[in-house]
This record gives sequence, C-alpha cells and structure tokens, in this order.
Amino acid sequence: MPKYAIGVDYGSLSGRAVLVEVGTGKEMGSCVYDYPHAVMDKTLPDGTKLGVDWALQDPQDYLDVLSHTIPALLEKTSVKAEDVIGIGTDFTACTVLPVKADGTPLCFLPQYKSNPHAYVKLWKHHAAQDKANALNETAEKMGEEWLQRYGGKISSEWEFPKLWQILDEAPEIYDAMDHFVEAADWIIWQLTGKQSRNSCTAGYKAMWSKREGYPAKEFFKALDPRLENVIADKLSCPVTPLGEKAGEITAETAELTGLLPGTAVAIGNVDAHVTIPAVKIDGVGKILGIMGTSTCHVLLGDAEKIVPGMCGVVEDGILPGFFGYEAGQSCVGDHFAWFVENCVPAAYQEAANKAGKDIHVYLSDLAAELLPGESGLVALDWWNGNRSVLVDVDLTGMMLGMTLQTKPEEMYRALIEATAYGTRKIIETFTKNGVPIHEFYASGGISQKNAMAMQIYANVINLPVKIAGSLQGPALGAAIFGAVAAGKERGGYDDVFAATRDMGKLRDDVYIPDPKAAAVYQKLYEEYDILHDYFGRGANDAMKRLKTLKKEVKAQK
Amino acid sequence: MPKYAIGVDYGSLSGRAVLVEVGTGKEMGSCVYDYPHAVMDKTLPDGTKLGVDWALQDPQDYLDVLSHTIPALLEKTSVKAEDVIGIGTDFTACTVLPVKADGTPLCFLPQYKSNPHAYVKLWKHHAAQDKANALNETAEKMGEEWLQRYGGKISSEWEFPKLWQILDEAPEIYDAMDHFVEAADWIIWQLTGKQSRNSCTAGYKAMWSKREGYPAKEFFKALDPRLENVIADKLSCPVTPLGEKAGEITAETAELTGLLPGTAVAIGNVDAHVTIPAVKIDGVGKILGIMGTSTCHVLLGDAEKIVPGMCGVVEDGILPGFFGYEAGQSCVGDHFAWFVENCVPAAYQEAANKAGKDIHVYLSDLAAELLPGESGLVALDWWNGNRSVLVDVDLTGMMLGMTLQTKPEEMYRALIEATAYGTRKIIETFTKNGVPIHEFYASGGISQKNAMAMQIYANVINLPVKIAGSLQGPALGAAIFGAVAAGKERGGYDDVFAATRDMGKLRDDVYIPDPKAAAVYQKLYEEYDILHDYFGRGANDAMKRLKTLKKEVKAQK
Repeated sequence: MPKYAIGVDYGSLSGRAVLVEVGTGKEMGSCVYDYPHAVMDKTLPDGTKLGVDWALQDPQDYLDVLSHTIPALLEKTSVKAEDVIGIGTDFTACTVLPVKADGTPLCFLPQYKSNPHAYVKLWKHHAAQDKANALNETAEKMGEEWLQRYGGKISSEWEFPKLWQILDEAPEIYDAMDHFVEAADWIIWQLTGKQSRNSCTAGYKAMWSKREGYPAKEFFKALDPRLENVIADKLSCPVTPLGEKAGEITAETAELTGLLPGTAVAIGNVDAHVTIPAVKIDGVGKILGIMGTSTCHVLLGDAEKIVPGMCGVVEDGILPGFFGYEAGQSCVGDHFAWFVENCVPAAYQEAANKAGKDIHVYLSDLAAELLPGESGLVALDWWNGNRSVLVDVDLTGMMLGMTLQTKPEEMYRALIEATAYGTRKIIETFTKNGVPIHEFYASGGISQKNAMAMQIYANVINLPVKIAGSLQGPALGAAIFGAVAAGKERGGYDDVFAATRDMGKLRDDVYIPDPKAAAVYQKLYEEYDILHDYFGRGANDAMKRLKTLKKEVKAQK
Repeated sequence: MPKYAIGVDYGSLSGRAVLVEVGTGKEMGSCVYDYPHAVMDKTLPDGTKLGVDWALQDPQDYLDVLSHTIPALLEKTSVKAEDVIGIGTDFTACTVLPVKADGTPLCFLPQYKSNPHAYVKLWKHHAAQDKANALNETAEKMGEEWLQRYGGKISSEWEFPKLWQILDEAPEIYDAMDHFVEAADWIIWQLTGKQSRNSCTAGYKAMWSKREGYPAKEFFKALDPRLENVIADKLSCPVTPLGEKAGEITAETAELTGLLPGTAVAIGNVDAHVTIPAVKIDGVGKILGIMGTSTCHVLLGDAEKIVPGMCGVVEDGILPGFFGYEAGQSCVGDHFAWFVENCVPAAYQEAANKAGKDIHVYLSDLAAELLPGESGLVALDWWNGNRSVLVDVDLTGMMLGMTLQTKPEEMYRALIEATAYGTRKIIETFTKNGVPIHEFYASGGISQKNAMAMQIYANVINLPVKIAGSLQGPALGAAIFGAVAAGKERGGYDDVFAATRDMGKLRDDVYIPDPKAAAVYQKLYEEYDILHDYFGRGANDAMKRLKTLKKEVKAQK
C-alpha cells in the first residue's frame, strides 16, 4: 500500500498543498487557497492606516489554508488520512509575527486588533530600512564577523530590523510579545502544539549560526539598550536543523485538516531552500535558481566560505551536514514584465493577438531567431537594483548599443541576456571564492515556460542547465521533508538524501551550452563585466547621483 | 510698386518655390513639386540595378521643379513677372553630377542612360566610404593642414570620394565628363546659361578655401595617379563668394519659368547655410540649428579657428566677410521617430487616438509634466553615431537610470534631453575653441512643433532660443539672396546684411532658460559629459566592439 506525504507551500498571496506519493514523488493532486486578507499595505481591515512601505498579513489566513486545502486534497485524491505519513511546509521569509507564550498572535487579541505592529510583517515590509542601516553601521563599527556571512550587509527585510521597528514604534507590542517568530515556525507550532525554530530562517534571517549562535548581548545593547536581552526575551526557543521532525499533528489540527493525530510534521522551511531536494540536488557544485519576478539562488557547500555579495551562508541551512549558500537577483521576470508593459509597440501587440500568442511568447519567438551578438546590445540587469554580488539597491538599469534599426525583440532579448550575465557573475563569484559550481538547476515559471531564455542561460554561463521536474517545486520539497519527518519505520525516510533521490524530479531535457554561442557570449559577458564594475563599483556613480537628484526634484514638486 | 524675389529650395524629395516681398520678407505664396524620380536607390528607371548604399537622382526633375512651380506661383499670387527682380536657390549638398562642357548631364546622353555613374549622386549616396577612408588616411599621413578645417575627417558624402568612385568604377564616365558639378551650381548654370561655382559647396564639400584653393596636385596624385590634375580637368571653374550675382535668366529659362529674361540670379547655395539670413543672423555669436531628422548647425565667426569635430570652416561659406562654421548631430528627430515606432505601448497609442492627438504630441504632453531630473534617466544621443564633436559613425545609443517605475514618456523625454546635451556639447566646443556663442536659433519642423523640446533646449544650453519666423526658412533665405543679386538699383539690395535685417524673420516668442531647471540640467549635463567621454573617447570602446561583433555574427548567418 503506497504511503503519501503532504507539502504545503505558503506564498505571498496564497497557500498551496500538494499530495505526493512517497518513494516516487508522484504528485497526486494539489489545492490552492487565496489568503482572504492578501497583503495589507494600505490599511488594516478596521481602516487603521499603514505607513509607506508597509506590508502585513493576517495569520488566520495561514490556518485557513490548512483547513481548506488539506481536506479538499484528501477528497480529491481519494487518499486516506491513514496513508498520509507526514507533512512538511515552507514559507516566505523573513515573514514574522509577535505571539504570546502559547503561540497566540497578538493580532488575535482584541486589545491589539487595531495595532499594525501586532500583525505579521510580510517579507516585503520595507519600513525598517533605517533600522537595517543603523544595524549595519553598528556591526561594521564593532567589527562583527558574522556580518561577512551575509555578504557584508543585512537587509531591512530581516528579523531584527523588523523587531527593532516594533520596539521603537510600538513598545507596548514589544513588551506584550513573549516570542517573535517566523511564520514558517508559527505554522509548525500550530500543527504540533509546540514551538520550534528552524535553522534556515534562524540562520538566513536572524543572524544565528550553529557554531556561534546569535550575535552577542553587547552588540544588541549597542543598537539600543532595550535590546540587550532580546534573544533571551523574545527568541528563546532553541534552533533545530532542517530534516528533523518538529512533532506530530495534534487532535486539534487533526480536526482542522482531516489528517490523523500523530502524523509526522517536519521542521519549518523556506520556499527557495526547500526546493533543493525537489530538484534532486544532494551535494555540492549545483546551484539552483528559483526564477520568477526575481531569482533566488541556493546551493550547498562543504565549508563556510565568505563570498562577496551573497545573501547568507548557514550551516544546516538547506540540507543537514552542508553549508547552505543563498544569493539573489532582485529583478529577473520583472524586467520582462516591465518591458512588455512599457516598451512593446501596438503593432506587435496586434500581431501577437492575431497569432493567438501571449506577448511574451510572441517576443520570445522573434528573439529566438536572433544570433548571440546580432543585436549589438548589452544591458545591465539592475532595473530593481542589484542584490548579488553588489548589494546595492540604488543601482538602476542601463542599455547600450541601440541604433535606428534596433527592434523591440532585440531589446527584449538583451534584457534576458542581462539577467543571464547577472547569474554568471554570481556563479563566478562563488567559484572564485572557494565554492565551485558545475551545473545550474532552474525552477519557477520562467524555467518552465521560456526555452529560449533557458538556452541563453546555458550559453551565457557555459554550464548545463537542468529544469525542475515539478511545477510545484517548493511544495514537493516540503512533502519530501514530510516523508523524512515520518521516518523509515512509518514508511518514509530516515534521511533527506535518500528521499531526495527517490522523490526529487528533473525534466529529461537538459539545456547544453552551444560552443559557438558560448564563445560569442564570452565576449558579450566581458562587456557586461566592464560595465558592471564601472557603474557598480564606484568608478562612475551616475546611477546613484541620478537617483539622489530624482528624489530631490520630486520632493520639490 | 512692391518688388518680389523668388527662392527655390531643392530638398531630397521635392523642390519648393516661395515668392517673397522685397523689403518685408512677406511670403506671398509657395508651390511644391515632388521629383518624379524621387531617390533612386535600388534601380535606374530602365531596371539597371544599383549597389548597396547608392542614392541617385535625375537632374531633369530639378528642371521640372522650375517649370512647374514658378509659373504656378506667379499665377497664384497674381504677381507680374516684371515685378520679380531676382531669384535665389538652395540645394542639398554634396549632391553632384558629371556634365559635358555645355552643362549637359551625362545621364541625358543616350549612350550613358544605363550607367548609374552618369546620374546625380545624392548627398546620402554612401557607397564611397572606402574612398573617404583612403582619402583621410593619406591626408593624415601627408600632414595635410586643410584636414583640420573639417574637424580632422572628410565624409564619404563629399565631392572627391564620389568623384574617385566614378574614376574607379566607371572610368569611361570620368573621361567623358568635362566638369563635376554640385547640383547647387548646375541649376544656376541652367538658369543663367553660364557656369559658376559657389564658395559654400566648394568650401564645405570640395576641400577648397579662399586663401589656399584646393589641395595640391601632389595630394591628389598620392591618392591615385590618375587624379593628379583633377582640379584642372574637372573642377576648373573659379569659385564665387555667396552674396554675388551669378547671372541673369536666359531667354530659354524665361520660357520655362515665365520670368523675364534678365532677371537676376544669385550664386548657388545650400539648404542649411542659406537659412542664416532667413532668421536674421548677420554676425557672430549666434548658432542656427536646422532641426529635422538630424540637425545641421551653422554659425558665423570672424576668424578661422580649428574646432574639434566641426564639419567645416569656410571663409565666405555662409555670408561674405565671415568664416562660416558648420557642425552637426546625425540623429535628432530620428531618435523620436524610432522611439515612437519601436517603444510606445498599445495603451498609449490608444489613449492618443482617443484624445485625437498625434502620438508625438501625446508623449510630449505627458513628458511636459515632468520636472528636469525627475525621470532619473540620462541617454547618449548616438542612435545614428555622432557627427560633432566626436566624428564617429560607429558609436551607438545608450540609456541609463531605468527602474521598474520608468514610463515611456520619461524615456521619450530623456531622448529629447540627450539631443539637447549633444547641442550643448557642440556649443561648448565652439566656445572653448575661440568661437563664442551667445544665442541659439532654431528652424525646421521640431522647432516649430515642439515647444516642450525647445524649452528643454533653452534650459539645457542655458541660452535664449529664438525660433525661425518662416516655415520655409531655406526658400526665404534663397529669396533674400535673390533680392541681393538684383541690387539696389533694380529695387533689391546691394548687400545681404541689409536684406537680412529687412526680410529675415523670427517668431516673437523666445525660449528663455529657467534658472531652476538650468541648474538641474547643469548636473545632468555633467553626467552626460562623463558618459560622452567614457564611451566616446576610447576609455571604453564597448559600442565599437559590439558593432564589430554584430557584423561578424551577421556575416555568418
């Protein structure tokens, strides 16, 4: 009798549950539930206004995902609850909330309903930038070595800037919370009835490391005397490595989900990182790009190396026993969406409509007819700044080589190529710094939909590109961890590597670099490289000066 | 009884005659005649194929302009032929043709009808680039000083590369021609029955100067031994300064045009240069930009200075007694046309249609709401290379500062600003090299149609911008020279300066720089300047390398 595991992938706007056959990775079915509150970025439901760059969620939505998708999934697939041996989850991060000692979110308490700081701060809540700046400055001044594990800079999206913002703007919430927890861990707490803290979010988002723990009291005190004991006060729960079992489904959540009490629950996880086993990566040398509006890169290393511009290196941060590395490109699909919205002439739109093609497909088909180098264009993929390796949000886009003969499809292709150059820059930076890479794995929408783009990536990075076999990479990865949480005895796995080999999936087709195209892209990349350093490393700070001027001018309007 | 002069402006596709009141410049009427043969760039009328980059015309079309427009003009305005005291003309240049001793074009002779080299080579015939390259190389090697008068480089569009091409590819045509003449001079020959050669085309297009004449025999011999006596053999006619009378209407052309025999005819002239008196420029410090698909800049100086990147400095080349300077931007309106054709989204086109606005007007209206610096964009106006001051056809376009919020109207405005920066660069280069400029005069379509663009120009160059008062600047200028050819005794003028003051026209409104905007543009221009030198002066030859790669790749396709 086959056994099954469920993976639940919590995205920015919805949660998706997938039921997977243990041993094969076969996806039996999936259900999606849109968060009723979606992202709150203007007001709370009661009309309380939010500040600029705020982004909140209501944790009730996360519970509703469980109660809506899992029973539906069981019904849809006719799989019996007794055959579901484990459940794993993954979440956006850093998505954090203040809770009481029993896990109750402060926003569930009537007295805090109208206080924005009582809610979940979504990963893209960007209102704590000043806190991040102050934190980085202090860390640099104090020579904090852990800063190097994060490419020299921590992000305003992460845990402590968000927590510090609460302390400053709503000290009553800070005082009232017993724990400040990642939603990734909170959902596990709800499923199992006990708190846990996963090594992935603790490592990548809360400056924790297996060997050194959190930064020292002195550092937090230097930030703000009230933060001196923040770890003991608000983050006291010990950290558990990924691959472990967090606990079992309680009677209460059994009722909510239709699963049996005692079903194994994996430690919380993060959407990008959890995808590694879903694409069968079980060791070093293989970088996975999760390609969507932006791209998140994750890979395994066997030692801790300091790589400039990476988002983080965390021991046990992706798979146990490895150092998990993360890097990112802040704008990938968003480039192409911007182009389509702002730069595609009416005649093209009409022709696409006539051909019954999506405009991206239409442009890609035209662009596919071009040879590398034929457009004469090179762009810098910085329309939304640069995450890795420059870590500079104030960089902006550039395109070069236009003539009166330049066509829209050439510019569209140049933007795709630019993101590929950006990926190559990341790969080269890892390799140069002692974390060699031999293969590129891709998951996410672009990897599935745009064969031209993926061939360009293969040619530009001059490495084979393998494509995720599942459209639901994160949910499949979460289910794999669910099967591991169950353990071999219950029909699952005792270690995640065996589960990965059995249940991870890749498409059969691999994009192999074409040597002729790769040779041309070598030349084009050299141009990108010169421009990358010229505009990105201080030789000409035109982009920053223009951005400053833009702000000054707009302020006067 | 008022007297009148006629100006005939020979463009690339049609000729336009304007009848102007002497003393006031009032335009009584105008008539246009499209050349029946237009531009021949694929085949001759008999099907003979033309090479790549060829552009020919049939001189019969120029005669047809006279016979169609002048009688119609007299009829339309009810002006009597006896009250027309003079006629002036202007032509595109260098537009040249081989003729017999009596002025008969070789292409009129049956034996040469099928020989492309027997026809008029239009200014934009670009098939003699190898000749221009060889000529420049030899001139540099021999240290020819006259090369500096042309910004260090002569163009493939000019007279000797075109003549040399004939010698090489059709020696029988070279041998058969008695003169190689500018169409500007040929039309005067037709009107007056005698040959003349004007100082403008001789100076700007045939390397002639008042003080030194043509380059020496030794130079031509070094190019090609067969060219040693080219001046005596094919360009023997002496050069006459602008402002002189070439002759009078013959009985034959009187019949053709309806004008009276004896009517004064001015020396031939060129479309850009002839516009100077039409906008009342009669001295130094005032630069005129004739703004169309490209921009031609002309201005007067009181001494010969070597200005890097200028197209030429010619004594008596614009107005007698002055050194006429010419510079150019190879792509101005063409940028905006390219943008509209390739980068304007369907939604904008629809909104423009709905508002009943031309798309340029629609974009300009949106762009006009932006403050300088608000877009954060800077572009280099090199979509068609750079004429002045870098003289480099291999440069290409660049735009910088794009974000995911960048809108089409911001990019459109950035292109307009880029052309204004290009103009400022030319003005600064003249000023730095001893030819100071205090005012900018603009004529041509853009100057009349786009108030936003002209205000941007004023703010960027931080000088007042005055606008031509006539939509037919060149024809008005030609008529002014016609009135001067007639002389005071016949009711005209004895010098062109008096005629300019009376008959030249400017619009009442002047674009005055806004100090606040000018201050922001100062900062933006500094960014342009850095990028201009970085990409344009060898620090990063990315544009050239990409263009070379593009050619290599295309050749393999």
